[in-house]
Amino acid sequence: MSAKRTNGARSTRRRELILSELLDTATELFAAKGYEATSLQDIADAMDVSRSALYHYLGTKDDLLAMLVEQVSRSLAEVLEELRTRPDLSPVDKVRNLTELLVRQRAEHPSQFRILDRSETVLPEPAGTEHLEAKRRIVRELVNIIDEGVKIGQFRPVDSRTAAFSLLGMCNWVAWWFRPQDASDIDAVVATITRLAQDMLCGPQEEAEVGSIGLLNEIRDRLDRLEPRL
Amino acid sequence: MSAKRTNGARSTRRRELILSELLDTATELFAAKGYEATSLQDIADAMDVSRSALYHYLGTKDDLLAMLVEQVSRSLAEVLEELRTRPDLSPVDKVRNLTELLVRQRAEHPSQFRILDRSETVLPEPAGTEHLEAKRRIVRELVNIIDEGVKIGQFRPVDSRTAAFSLLGMCNWVAWWFRPQDASDIDAVVATITRLAQDMLCGPQEEAEVGSIGLLNEIRDRLDRLEPRL
Repeated sequence: MSAKRTNGARSTRRRELILSELLDTATELFAAKGYEATSLQDIADAMDVSRSALYHYLGTKDDLLAMLVEQVSRSLAEVLEELRTRPDLSPVDKVRNLTELLVRQRAEHPSQFRILDRSETVLPEPAGTEHLEAKRRIVRELVNIIDEGVKIGQFRPVDSRTAAFSLLGMCNWVAWWFRPQDASDIDAVVATITRLAQDMLCGPQEEAEVGSIGLLNEIRDRLDRLEPRL
Repeated sequence: MSAKRTNGARSTRRRELILSELLDTATELFAAKGYEATSLQDIADAMDVSRSALYHYLGTKDDLLAMLVEQVSRSLAEVLEELRTRPDLSPVDKVRNLTELLVRQRAEHPSQFRILDRSETVLPEPAGTEHLEAKRRIVRELVNIIDEGVKIGQFRPVDSRTAAFSLLGMCNWVAWWFRPQDASDIDAVVATITRLAQDMLCGPQEEAEVGSIGLLNEIRDRLDRLEPRL
């Protein structure tokens, strides 16, 4: 890799980090003071940069809402579309991956999701339309994954639209209850909710129809377990 | 029952119906126009009553937020406290009852929950403190129910706080996705989410420890199922 490309990758990564910090700072200010009462100067002050440095990343406050749509809803729709079509993953794997991703995003950047969710009705265009489309794509992809799981018997039969919204609600709610001071618990919360999501869709294992050989094997298994007790 | 008491019960019921309609109308207007931009006159117009008739139920717009806290969060905390201590219900029954109640309330009065949820930071006192306390009570009661279920082996071991918030998130989310035009589907949605909640907490049934007599009975059962196939 040439020095130039390394620098390029580094500066892209640096830009992403700054944008993420910018969105966190701005959405926390919006949450505390309200969107209207927060100025670009407030955001520059909180990030300890000059207002002209901020202009390198955004021109107006509305740009922040467009960036939120890109960061929170559109990128999720894209990840989910990619996930749904992966041939190496089963529906359970896909649901687990999605749940992990969502819970972690909501726990690490709660203000980003909360502000976006509460600004839905006042998003500037085209961000508003893009957000609505991304949300529809997310539901559609998740419904497809659940339908696929039901079809191959990995999930029990369920209304996939209701199940998809239930799963999304469970994950999104994290943005409202997870406390940043519990940051060390993020992994535990991610693991717990991922397991809840899986059990919710797989349900209790129904007794499978067993053939004659299967019944003989079950008898052999019970005899093997009885023997040492005699 | 005397005529007087019948009239009293009828007028209490009538008052409850009017208050419920008032809250639905007001919160739908708040959702459409914003809290600040909605006047008491707008609410009276939408209900087709005079503004002086409205004064019979509330003095200021802030009274509506206090009524919302009473209707949506405090009454739920009370129902949940009563449910938790019922000796005739198992933890699974209690979770099923709570889920049914919550999903139905969110589906039937989505604006009430949405407006309350979005006004949390600007609730007038003492409604603000009461709302916060009611929310804490709801989580505490639900955590207790889940802990009880884990203790008696009805639920699999789980972090009860994370599980409680996941269940609440799944139910509350209904207020954001359920469409009033799907009202005929409320029963189906209630049934689906109640089942999801139950499976989420009970998990796949683990194989129980079986004694020698149990193993003999299992062998007898398999032999009985084999016999007709020979």
